[in-house]
Amino acid sequence: MKATLTQGGQTFEATNRDILDALAGKNFFWLDLDDGEADGMVGELLTNHFGFHPLAVQAAERFSQRPRIDDYDGFSYMVTRGADPERTGQAEVHCFWTDTYVVTVHRGECPALQHVRERMGRHRAAEVASPQIVVVYLVVDALVESFFPVLSEFDDRIDALEDDILAAPTEAQLGVLFEMKRSLMEMRKAITPQRDMMASISSRSTDVPGMTDGAAHYFRDLYDHLIRLADQVDSYRDLLGSVMDTHLSTVSNRLNVVMKQLAIIATVFLPLSWLTGFFGQNFSFLVTHIAPAWTFFVVGIGTELVAVALLFMLFKRRGWLGGPTV
Amino acid sequence: MKATLTQGGQTFEATNRDILDALAGKNFFWLDLDDGEADGMVGELLTNHFGFHPLAVQAAERFSQRPRIDDYDGFSYMVTRGADPERTGQAEVHCFWTDTYVVTVHRGECPALQHVRERMGRHRAAEVASPQIVVVYLVVDALVESFFPVLSEFDDRIDALEDDILAAPTEAQLGVLFEMKRSLMEMRKAITPQRDMMASISSRSTDVPGMTDGAAHYFRDLYDHLIRLADQVDSYRDLLGSVMDTHLSTVSNRLNVVMKQLAIIATVFLPLSWLTGFFGQNFSFLVTHIAPAWTFFVVGIGTELVAVALLFMLFKRRGWLGGPTV
Amino acid sequence: MKATLTQGGQTFEATNRDILDALAGKNFFWLDLDDGEADGMVGELLTNHFGFHPLAVQAAERFSQRPRIDDYDGFSYMVTRGADPERTGQAEVHCFWTDTYVVTVHRGECPALQHVRERMGRHRAAEVASPQIVVVYLVVDALVESFFPVLSEFDDRIDALEDDILAAPTEAQLGVLFEMKRSLMEMRKAITPQRDMMASISSRSTDVPGMTDGAAHYFRDLYDHLIRLADQVDSYRDLLGSVMDTHLSTVSNRLNVVMKQLAIIATVFLPLSWLTGFFGQNFSFLVTHIAPAWTFFVVGIGTELVAVALLFMLFKRRGWLGGPTV
Amino acid sequence: MKATLTQGGQTFEATNRDILDALAGKNFFWLDLDDGEADGMVGELLTNHFGFHPLAVQAAERFSQRPRIDDYDGFSYMVTRGADPERTGQAEVHCFWTDTYVVTVHRGECPALQHVRERMGRHRAAEVASPQIVVVYLVVDALVESFFPVLSEFDDRIDALEDDILAAPTEAQLGVLFEMKRSLMEMRKAITPQRDMMASISSRSTDVPGMTDGAAHYFRDLYDHLIRLADQVDSYRDLLGSVMDTHLSTVSNRLNVVMKQLAIIATVFLPLSWLTGFFGQNFSFLVTHIAPAWTFFVVGIGTELVAVALLFMLFKRRGWLGGPTV
Amino acid sequence: MKATLTQGGQTFEATNRDILDALAGKNFFWLDLDDGEADGMVGELLTNHFGFHPLAVQAAERFSQRPRIDDYDGFSYMVTRGADPERTGQAEVHCFWTDTYVVTVHRGECPALQHVRERMGRHRAAEVASPQIVVVYLVVDALVESFFPVLSEFDDRIDALEDDILAAPTEAQLGVLFEMKRSLMEMRKAITPQRDMMASISSRSTDVPGMTDGAAHYFRDLYDHLIRLADQVDSYRDLLGSVMDTHLSTVSNRLNVVMKQLAIIATVFLPLSWLTGFFGQNFSFLVTHIAPAWTFFVVGIGTELVAVALLFMLFKRRGWLGGPTV
Repeated sequence: MKATLTQGGQTFEATNRDILDALAGKNFFWLDLDDGEADGMVGELLTNHFGFHPLAVQAAERFSQRPRIDDYDGFSYMVTRGADPERTGQAEVHCFWTDTYVVTVHRGECPALQHVRERMGRHRAAEVASPQIVVVYLVVDALVESFFPVLSEFDDRIDALEDDILAAPTEAQLGVLFEMKRSLMEMRKAITPQRDMMASISSRSTDVPGMTDGAAHYFRDLYDHLIRLADQVDSYRDLLGSVMDTHLSTVSNRLNVVMKQLAIIATVFLPLSWLTGFFGQNFSFLVTHIAPAWTFFVVGIGTELVAVALLFMLFKRRGWLGGPTV
Repeated sequence: MKATLTQGGQTFEATNRDILDALAGKNFFWLDLDDGEADGMVGELLTNHFGFHPLAVQAAERFSQRPRIDDYDGFSYMVTRGADPERTGQAEVHCFWTDTYVVTVHRGECPALQHVRERMGRHRAAEVASPQIVVVYLVVDALVESFFPVLSEFDDRIDALEDDILAAPTEAQLGVLFEMKRSLMEMRKAITPQRDMMASISSRSTDVPGMTDGAAHYFRDLYDHLIRLADQVDSYRDLLGSVMDTHLSTVSNRLNVVMKQLAIIATVFLPLSWLTGFFGQNFSFLVTHIAPAWTFFVVGIGTELVAVALLFMLFKRRGWLGGPTV
Repeated sequence: MKATLTQGGQTFEATNRDILDALAGKNFFWLDLDDGEADGMVGELLTNHFGFHPLAVQAAERFSQRPRIDDYDGFSYMVTRGADPERTGQAEVHCFWTDTYVVTVHRGECPALQHVRERMGRHRAAEVASPQIVVVYLVVDALVESFFPVLSEFDDRIDALEDDILAAPTEAQLGVLFEMKRSLMEMRKAITPQRDMMASISSRSTDVPGMTDGAAHYFRDLYDHLIRLADQVDSYRDLLGSVMDTHLSTVSNRLNVVMKQLAIIATVFLPLSWLTGFFGQNFSFLVTHIAPAWTFFVVGIGTELVAVALLFMLFKRRGWLGGPTV
Repeated sequence: MKATLTQGGQTFEATNRDILDALAGKNFFWLDLDDGEADGMVGELLTNHFGFHPLAVQAAERFSQRPRIDDYDGFSYMVTRGADPERTGQAEVHCFWTDTYVVTVHRGECPALQHVRERMGRHRAAEVASPQIVVVYLVVDALVESFFPVLSEFDDRIDALEDDILAAPTEAQLGVLFEMKRSLMEMRKAITPQRDMMASISSRSTDVPGMTDGAAHYFRDLYDHLIRLADQVDSYRDLLGSVMDTHLSTVSNRLNVVMKQLAIIATVFLPLSWLTGFFGQNFSFLVTHIAPAWTFFVVGIGTELVAVALLFMLFKRRGWLGGPTV
Repeated sequence: MKATLTQGGQTFEATNRDILDALAGKNFFWLDLDDGEADGMVGELLTNHFGFHPLAVQAAERFSQRPRIDDYDGFSYMVTRGADPERTGQAEVHCFWTDTYVVTVHRGECPALQHVRERMGRHRAAEVASPQIVVVYLVVDALVESFFPVLSEFDDRIDALEDDILAAPTEAQLGVLFEMKRSLMEMRKAITPQRDMMASISSRSTDVPGMTDGAAHYFRDLYDHLIRLADQVDSYRDLLGSVMDTHLSTVSNRLNVVMKQLAIIATVFLPLSWLTGFFGQNFSFLVTHIAPAWTFFVVGIGTELVAVALLFMLFKRRGWLGGPTV
């Protein structure tokens, strides 16, 4: 466990001593706990010294949780998640806050929290809301923002995949499609509960300690971003379905082209081969009658040319010539 | 930044001076800001002189926003969008309005706003609503109307694509289908939030400064148009799915036709070639016995004719003759 | 513009004079306007003499509207639609009604309205509701009833199409499927808004002038019919999807059959042809050793028969014999 | 019309006289009318002697109605349906009930009603509810129960169909699938409205004469059964979609197998045939040089063996050997 | 019937005598009934001695019930289910509870109940809720937890199946897919009703005897788990659809590869065979002119080489070389 305490504008690595002092005081502090080792010390601290409800502490010790907000006597508990394309688990933050302080729990390096530390002093939300709410808002904001570049890259990948498939459909693309669908679902599971959570916070239907009308505007802004993210995720899912359909249709189309080539080849050479076979028979009559030189040019070459000409006309009438050749 | 001020029936390009004068007065004015250069001056003006909430100003500086309405102390902020098939971004207008004035922000040439200027003086809504609401209504109305021709053209394109596919399915059509699905989704994202927004405005569940019962009828009319648009978008999406299915079925069907041709050719010429091969064998017995002339006509030609006749009967029984040939 | 006035049990073609007289009186009348020429006279009359709200008059001048009901000061405006399989536009009626009269606007021959005239005098709803409501009810009733035979025919067409496809899948069927899906969507757009409209009227949540508890039963009955229609439309849409899937599966299945034939033919004649080719080689050894007559019967005919027998066994084991042949 | 009257524990075929007597008295009776002939007498009786609302009577004279409950002055009218796999129409019962009696209308033999007669005297619901409600409850209960065996058989049929398709996909299965989807939709139309109806009755949001808290438990039980039925119908619909997909995939898979066989045959015999053709050419050089006996064994047989060996290695590397052969 | 009584910290197999004693006392007890033999004794006991409502008792005697909670006078009845991948029916527990005791009914070995016995004494929920609620909570908790490992294994199976299909699509996989879809639906039917049940219990909208605010937190926690489970089930269903699509696309793709091989073989050997056939004709002119040795090398070998070179160039241009070979 690594504890970082932010109080009175200062941020420093805190010992247990510092934490207890801060807790004993009446001033606002933000304690950030890195539970990277998952050694149970975070749970112990939160239970024994902070006295949080065992259900909330238990939840904070497990990661990969569904975003949610729970209101307990005297404190609120929120799980919030950002984009985590490499599934490092570093984009999940659990927040506890009371009237006087905030505690955040995360695992490993979490760039969003560093970003919060930089912005918390000078953010305008500080004018209308208590510092706990500002920290909570900034944490959610940083995590929500992290989805935008990921989804934007996703958008480009869908287009690239569609172009790839139209250029040359392969089986590897099907694996990619499946992976993309899966990761889209992962994002959906992080985004939609947060959207509903922000809706209920900004409409004040969930009661949150330290919430003000002024702060509600900021959460409404987050809500708006989350609606957009959820809409995008749904669009992408739909588009992935279309890409899958495109793959199947393209493969079928290419099969058509190959089969048409095969049909043309067979239609040309099967009759021609039959003709040569015909004149290769050992009937004496045939051997006798095809003796003169002109028979070779008229019958041997002639019938072949006539056959080719007839086939050419047939293909022309069916539009088999000049089509795509790949 | 290019500012256009409309006050007392006059419209003119405004300097900062003019804007501050208008702001100082108590008369209604409509200030239209073209933020084509996105140089931050619009944000500065809105923050420092108009005193709008930083969240709203921030939102107005970013484009490609989701349509929405936010109610702040003393002013309302609305993002509204029209059809933008070429993605120029010229069909997005952000409106701020208070009890006395309206400010609109857009980027580049926006034909909808010009249309508003022409209609605002003589529109009948002016009899029942404050001038701010009239301007806002006309802006939304002009943007909403812009969807109809686009969707109507879309309708024609779907029909044309279906006909094209039934005539001759190609891979290029799959790319077109994907593009159409994508642009339909873009439109959906602009239409449905506006529909919900108009529903809440016309039913008065969102409180908007300057709103009257008389004006609500006009917003209800917009709501009705937007429901129709959303219904159409959903129908088109469904139809695009059918077009995709038609493509696959048509391709499969054509494959059937090609394969039937191939099967017929092979079924005719493989047995015939075998027959000629048979009589081309070097067995002395065979060579000896097929010496007389009649053997050629009876055995050589005869077996071939019998084979052709049998095959013809077989094809007839299977219905392989007279089918489509493309 | 053709005006038909119904008052005091009499129905006659009305001049402008008659209309103004009726309007000046205090007795109930039903004015039916045929706006077949769309010459603007209807709009003028409704605006200047009846004084309806410009938004409602504007809407009544445009056809192909989404069914809806709008409540204005002193009058109600309703757009209602029936089945219109040939898209003649003759199944759309716009109704305006106040405490004393009803005005209906339509285009061209509208059989539903004739039906209303015949029933309005003797319908039992007249006992419990004001005459305006009776006319409105009968108009909607006649239009709603018009959907039933159309949907019932649709049902038969789906079954017929499925049977056709199972008998012989063609590309023309795909075009028919697309057309059917499209017309189903058109019907859906006319049915679902009316269903919701009737729900709100019958539950009295939309306030309608002249409405009574007794009349609400009649609108509830309409609501029930419209739910059934909407359910049917949804079922048919689902079934059309199944029909499309059937088409694809049938085409694929037939391809299988054709390919199996081709494979059988090739598997029979390619080995046989190789055998004849083998004995057609010019190796002197071969020529010498196949000189005796028995060689022809034993080796020439024998190998071929053995090959045929082996192939027959192979086919038998793979179940390739006796399958479908179309 | 056949009338069956149940009163005071006795059930007998009733004349018009009996019905009027029962109606004149104040004791509870249950009149069951079999409108098998649809001769209008039922309508006449219900209108003239029972005085029910014309809309309700009209509805009771038409069958194939959507289940629903309508509350009129002084009586309630309910349409309820059971499973009717053979579309005999015998599982539809219309109930009218007032404070003192129940009238049920059905067509033909209705086993559910016989079942009600047997249970009504000794059912425990009689302790907590008026006899009308008991009859209505038992009628709905009997009809709802009739769905369970039908759906259970449906479940088995889906599994059997899936197994059949995996064993050997045929076109007949596509027709069966379509029929199953259709009959599932029919059931859905009977089940979901009844589910919603029972929900509103058991939660007391629909006011029903003679309803008690004790009886509500029984209707809640029906509601629970109907939810389960509706869930099952939805599952089956989904599974039928999967079965359809299985059909297409299986057909495609079998095509693959057939084509692989064809490809193997062609890949073996086309090169071999070319070799024999090569040595069958009439070039004197060739004829001269292949005169010695060893040439036949080394070149004639040898090249063929080498070709077969090479092809065998090629197939081995591609995994074309040992796959499925059907 | 096997009865296990838990009272005053002791758990023992109970005789009927013990049960009646416990019932006569005023102390809390938990009676667990194993209705493995389904011999009707459980129903008799619950009806005669506990006096539960016949509907509830009837329900408790049938298994495979939909999870639900019913509130009766004086007691609550709840059906709750856990994961039951092998359909043993051992993960279904029916609970009855009043102000003083809990009765659970199950069939066969139920590991969840053993787990409850171990935890009930020392669980922290005991501090805030009555013992009945603690038992009910622990039962549901144990059953809900049982879904997580099953779904997690399901997740792995989907991935494995997708990988399998991409490696080599077979028909057996289609059967597996169908089975997985089916078992997913079974789980869905157990999970979603419990989710809704926990929502209404934790929000206190369903009134449950012995419920406290403190206990509601525990049920909210269950609710949260159930939402996550329901989300997962929906994701998996969607992914199974993608896997099915992958199967079809992979099969089609492989067909393409096979057909390309066939087309290449045919395109190479049909022209070559024709050439050899051409020079195998018995035209005297031909036989005479191809007598010199050089004709064999130039014309016989030469034309073949030229043909092969031309075909190689053709294939190269079409990109037919170097593609996938499986």
